[in-house]
Order: sequence, then C-alpha cells, then structure tokens
Amino acid sequence: MSAQIVGVGMTGFGRRPERTLRDLAIEASRAALDDAGVDVRDVEAAVVGNAMAGLMTGQESVRGQTVLRGFGLGGVPIVNVENACASGATALHLAEALVTSGRHECVLVVGVEKLYDDERAKTMAALAGAVEVTEESAGMTFMEIYAARVRAYMASYGATARHLAQIAAKNRAHGALNPYAGFRSPVSADEILTSPLVADPLRRLMCCPITDGAAAVVVCSAPFARRRDARAVTIRASVLVSGDRDADANNENVVARAATRAYEQASLGAGDVDVFEVHDAASSGELLSYASLQLCAPGDEQRLVDDGVTALGGTAPFNPSGGLQSKGNPSGATGVAQIAELVWQLRGDAGARQVSGARVGLAENAGGMVNDRTAAVCVHVLAA
Amino acid sequence: MSAQIVGVGMTGFGRRPERTLRDLAIEASRAALDDAGVDVRDVEAAVVGNAMAGLMTGQESVRGQTVLRGFGLGGVPIVNVENACASGATALHLAEALVTSGRHECVLVVGVEKLYDDERAKTMAALAGAVEVTEESAGMTFMEIYAARVRAYMASYGATARHLAQIAAKNRAHGALNPYAGFRSPVSADEILTSPLVADPLRRLMCCPITDGAAAVVVCSAPFARRRDARAVTIRASVLVSGDRDADANNENVVARAATRAYEQASLGAGDVDVFEVHDAASSGELLSYASLQLCAPGDEQRLVDDGVTALGGTAPFNPSGGLQSKGNPSGATGVAQIAELVWQLRGDAGARQVSGARVGLAENAGGMVNDRTAAVCVHVLAA
Repeated sequence: MSAQIVGVGMTGFGRRPERTLRDLAIEASRAALDDAGVDVRDVEAAVVGNAMAGLMTGQESVRGQTVLRGFGLGGVPIVNVENACASGATALHLAEALVTSGRHECVLVVGVEKLYDDERAKTMAALAGAVEVTEESAGMTFMEIYAARVRAYMASYGATARHLAQIAAKNRAHGALNPYAGFRSPVSADEILTSPLVADPLRRLMCCPITDGAAAVVVCSAPFARRRDARAVTIRASVLVSGDRDADANNENVVARAATRAYEQASLGAGDVDVFEVHDAASSGELLSYASLQLCAPGDEQRLVDDGVTALGGTAPFNPSGGLQSKGNPSGATGVAQIAELVWQLRGDAGARQVSGARVGLAENAGGMVNDRTAAVCVHVLAA
Repeated sequence: MSAQIVGVGMTGFGRRPERTLRDLAIEASRAALDDAGVDVRDVEAAVVGNAMAGLMTGQESVRGQTVLRGFGLGGVPIVNVENACASGATALHLAEALVTSGRHECVLVVGVEKLYDDERAKTMAALAGAVEVTEESAGMTFMEIYAARVRAYMASYGATARHLAQIAAKNRAHGALNPYAGFRSPVSADEILTSPLVADPLRRLMCCPITDGAAAVVVCSAPFARRRDARAVTIRASVLVSGDRDADANNENVVARAATRAYEQASLGAGDVDVFEVHDAASSGELLSYASLQLCAPGDEQRLVDDGVTALGGTAPFNPSGGLQSKGNPSGATGVAQIAELVWQLRGDAGARQVSGARVGLAENAGGMVNDRTAAVCVHVLAA
C-alpha cells in the first residue's frame, strides 16, 4: 500500500524577521490543507521537522506542539523530528510509514525554520550544531567542507569554478520564475564568479543564503484520497540513509546509496524521472549529485552543465524551483519545500517553470555531518 | 500485524559526569542487542529519542548519528525524535510504525540524556526549554506546574501531602530492589514530608532527581522474532496524543484520552493489566494517573494508596522499577527505560521486584507543557 500526497503549501522563503515560527508553520499548513480540500479536523497526526529552533529560540523541546498551537488540530499526536537540513524529508519519511502502517489515514507534515537573526553568531552556532565536533572538523563550516569535496572532484575530472557558476546561474534563472523563492533576480555566471570568495572555489553566489520559511504537505492513504476525489500524487519511494565511513567510500556514495534504493523501491531508473529537486546548499552539491543519481558516470557531470541537460528545457531539469540557491535553506523546511515543488510539477501547476509533461519526480535532501560524511540523506520518488 | 520487542537494555541511571552521551547510548544499545541475540548488522534502522542535548552540548542536530557513531550500524537510517520527557516512548511509537508498515524488520530504539551538569543553570535552561513560554507560564518550573495541579485535586478530594509521600516512599522501596536505579536507599514517608519544600505541597523527595542515562529496545516483526526463536513481548497498543485545551478539560484528561485509546487498541481494560510504569516526575503524577488509567473513579486515588493496591504485592503494582523517583528522569531515556522494565516483568526476569505472573503491562510517559497542558503523552500496552 503506498501513501499519497493530496495537498502542499509553503510560505515565501526569505528573511522574515517580522514573522514568528508559528506564523510560518500555520501559514504553510493552512495552504496545504486548503490545497488538499481537507479539514483540519480530518488530520490524525502531525510530523514536524525543525532542526535549529532550540539554539535559535531556547524552546528546545515540543517545538511542533508550540508552533501548531491554535491551528485546531485538537490533541492529535505530534512528533518532532530532526535530521539537520534533511529534517523535512525525514518528517515525510515517517509520515509515509504512519500511513502505510495503517495507523493513520491522514498526516500533516510541516517543515519550519527561522535562521535569520540580527545576531549573526547565533545563526552560525545553530548551523555549527549540525556538524559533529571532532578534531578534524573542529571549526570547519559547511561551506568549507563542501569546498574541500569539490576541490578533490575538480582535481580528478577537470571541472572548473565556471561549471559551479553555471549551475548557480541556472538555478537563479529558475528561481526568477518561482513566486516562493526569496531571491528572484537572475545573475550571470560572470557575476557569480566575481562575487566574494567563501571557501575556494565556492563564491558567495554559489552558496545558499540564510533564510526563514515553512512548507507543509498532506499525506494520506489511497482510500482517503479516493473518498475525497483528490488530485493525488503517489509516493513511489521513500528512502533515508545515514552517511558512514565504512559503508561509504566517499561522500557522493551516501547519495548514491539512497538513490539506488529509491530507484529499486519505485521500480524505475534515472531515465524515467522527469524532474529533480536536489540539495544545492552549495552549487557543488548539485554538480556532484548528477552521477550519484545515475544521470551520468562520475567525471561526466560537467558535460551535463555544458549541454544544458539539467536546465529547464533540458532532458533532465534540476531544481526548477530555483533550488536552495534561490530559496535559501531554512533547514527544517527545505526538504518539504522540495516535495511541494515536485507535486506542483507533477500536477502541471508550476506555471512559468513547468516541466512539460512531468510524470515522475525525485527529491534529494541532505543534512548534517558526522564522521566526515553527510549524516542523513533522504530520497523520495513521486509519481503523478 | 503487530510489532514485537525481542531485547531491552539500559545503563544505570544516575549522575554520570565521567560518561559521554555516546558511552551511555552505546552501552544501552549493546545490552539490548545482546539481550535480543541480534547482531548489529541485522538492525535496519534506529530511532533515537533525546530532548535536551542541543542546549546541554551545543550539538543541536543529528544527535543520534553522533551518539551511535562507531556502534557498527553501517549507514542505516537514523531518525532523531523529540517530545520532551516523552521522547523515548515517542521513539518507540515511530519504530512500531516502521515495523508494522513493512518498511523494516528490525529497528533499534535508543533513548539517551545527560542532564546533570556542574553548571546548574544549563540544566535549568534545558528543562525550561520544554515549557512553552507564555504570559501565564513565564518563569514557572515543571514542579510549580505539577504542584498547582495537585493542589486543585487535594482541595476537591481531600487527599493530603502524606498520600504523595506514601507514593514516593513506595517507589523508593521498589527502587531499592532495582540495580539500575540511581537512588536505592529506602526513605520513609516521614522523612519525605520533612525534606525541603520545592513547591507546596511537593517536597524534594517527591520530585525526581536530575540524572543521566540511556535505555534501548529492539523492535521487530513477528516473522523476524520467530526466525530467531526470540523471547518476544508483543506491542499490543502504541498511542500518542498531544494535550490540547479544547480537547482536554483538564490535564488528567490528556492521560485519560491516551489510555482509553490504548485499551481499545489492545482490546483489554485496566483490570487486565498486571503491572504499570507511569511518569512520576513528581509523585503527584502517579497519584493522578490512577483514575486517568481507569483504576478508580476520580477522587478515589488516595484510597489506592491507603490500601497498598499500587505497591508490589498489591493488585495493581505501579512503578516496580522504582519509577522516576528512584531512577531520576533523563528525559530522552525515561520512556524507553519504562519499556525495558515492563519487558523484564513480562518475561519474569525482574528479580526481587518481579510482579508474580505478570502477563500484561502498561507504560505511560509524558513530556513538555504547551498551552497549559502536557504536550505529549504516550501510552504503550505490552503483552507476554
């Protein structure tokens, strides 16, 4: 029995100093229920993904109950889930199990995060709290870790910083078409290549900005969807893995392992997927995902960039939403927003950024760093 | 299809300044796998309950991956779950769904917490992070909230502080028989009644001490248990609810709502339960649970105390482990330790504190405070 998604919603992503976590969570939840045509009283449980509000606000525990208070859920179970920047997809992963186990017919998934703060040190501490402190990683930021990985790749395969700039420029062009993206002005590869260096070869305009936002999806059983005559999208695969130095020779392998299992679970291959949303916290993340997701052999990634394969209009469009480059990365919300974008694409509701005839979509959401590997990678495959 | 528990383990609960979170988590996990006769490579996923390590350590995210690193799980999915002091039972609730959904055959549940710190303000901030900050609750501690509730009860029904002392004395007598309890010296009701006042009528020896600890259980499918010829205990009910001012006229109703659903799910009544483990963070919590769990009518709770019904040897023994009074409340671990105790009881492995012939057990684990109600209550019913 597979679970279905019958409604999605999100807030605009960006800097929202005037909105509380609750404002954002409830706005996205209401939008998802409205989209589904589901009354809040029909929701049987909620799974809430948030990664960093403990350090940002001091409200360390029962964050979901706090942000959804007043929404009218009336005492249904609320589970708080965390997997760093993969918290959102992990929440969906659990909701899918709550539905397919038969325990619940209709589950609300909410991802919410506020990372922007006037006190920049607070945001930096919250982000650092997703990297395991070891002798090797002490003091390293995510961008420094990403940079080290892509430097190794560039040395092996001859990719250049321009490829990373081209990906960022592509995603910003996509984001210009997405009313939910916080950064909607297109930027050229040349502008990106002259923006300030963050960690060689990554420049500021290749790194996702710090933002706030929320996204929500309504997951339900097939009978529930049928009874409502809902426009349902099916969850064909939901796979979570943890990076592990023994299981994963390198970091790309973590994504590859999740993807292989997801394709098996969905009984399809990379060539069957019409649209991808991937975790481009730095544009290097998208570049390296092409081979991990079986779009090409390792080393051929830059060819996909050069040929425009992964741009809107190409044969395998990546991040039509604009990706994290255009939306930022409000960690708990990021993975849920990727799912919202896929659902819009698969229903033909994506407007100016619609991938024509999209029937199958894949989302890859990654988070945290433990023992020199991404701590959690979650891959979902959805089908119209 | 119901899920089964084939192994349990825990560390001693108490002050463990010399042990890391990882030490504790791995000690409990290894004990549970050894008890189950399951190799770590057969574990397909882990669900980790922790409520407060973000504020205690700064490692806000991917705590489960961090504490289980080096245990040999080899890249299986790890989900981090939080529901304040009900984090542990919530982790089991999710693991049960992961098994009954058919997604995994064998899931490790770990609850772990270190709350003791030389810097007492840090522990206080972590605990305060489980209470929603509102105008009404601002600055109130859990014990003040518990005290206000039981004062209202005492005013209505004539219970006295001595009843609370008798419960604490009973649980400390039970705890004296439990090698895992941190506080194993019996104390008399008179000693308890002369210990320092925390929040009228609660005295220090009616309130659980601040401790560290970990507990783990191995949850699996019935076929998995059969293949291993395991001594399995069945999860007959797993119910989570959130307190809600609209759904719950008073706080006792939150527990009552969870219990009613759990009895339905298990197809049995309170009279069929041989042994109870309940959340006596203050002894008032146990007193008030008697009616909520349908052992008596509201107002009759103190009669159960007077008659020794809920002591070892009584007809409905509560907290044979010694409860939170004897073990303390390492929040993420508390609910998992309750399950460990029930499994030992139902297998006849509980030694000097064995409830003779126990076949059915119930655990009630509660956490957090939102909108003036307990944020999460989780009730499990297990059967031999």
